[in-house]
Amino acid sequence: QTVPRPARLGLCAACHGANGEATMPGAPNLAGQRLDYLRDALAQYRDGRRDVPVMRTAIGAVSAADLDALARWYSAQSPKQAQP
Amino acid sequence: QTVPRPARLGLCAACHGANGEATMPGAPNLAGQRLDYLRDALAQYRDGRRDVPVMRTAIGAVSAADLDALARWYSAQSPKQAQP
Repeated sequence: QTVPRPARLGLCAACHGANGEATMPGAPNLAGQRLDYLRDALAQYRDGRRDVPVMRTAIGAVSAADLDALARWYSAQSPKQAQP
Repeated sequence: QTVPRPARLGLCAACHGANGEATMPGAPNLAGQRLDYLRDALAQYRDGRRDVPVMRTAIGAVSAADLDALARWYSAQSPKQAQP
């Protein structure tokens, strides 16, 4: 059961990479992250418990369904061995 | 250059696993995460910008040096393919 490529992926890929390997310093890798954690983190960026303007702006206009599709996409990606 | 097993690893392993594969629902995988992101997240748990009591309690009594050793340890771990 592969996860379809989400419609809004481009929005996230700028910092997190399309495959969840972060390209922007300070942005987390998302590939293979726990889906429940991603959903929780996104909710916190959306309601401000995590006060990160770039994330609040990025996801502000994204529907709950599109946001969940993004979380499922990244959780399903295979993480690469990171360079420490 | 392998990262030595940190003295305080047991503290984190309960939720994040010794290898960074989270065992506790809602806790993030840490293996292979970007080191700059982990340091930033830990700083936010410590100063309350991320208001997560379990993390504030867990790292409250950990020295900055021990905390950084933990961040380096987890960043250096090889992430596993997650089950979506």
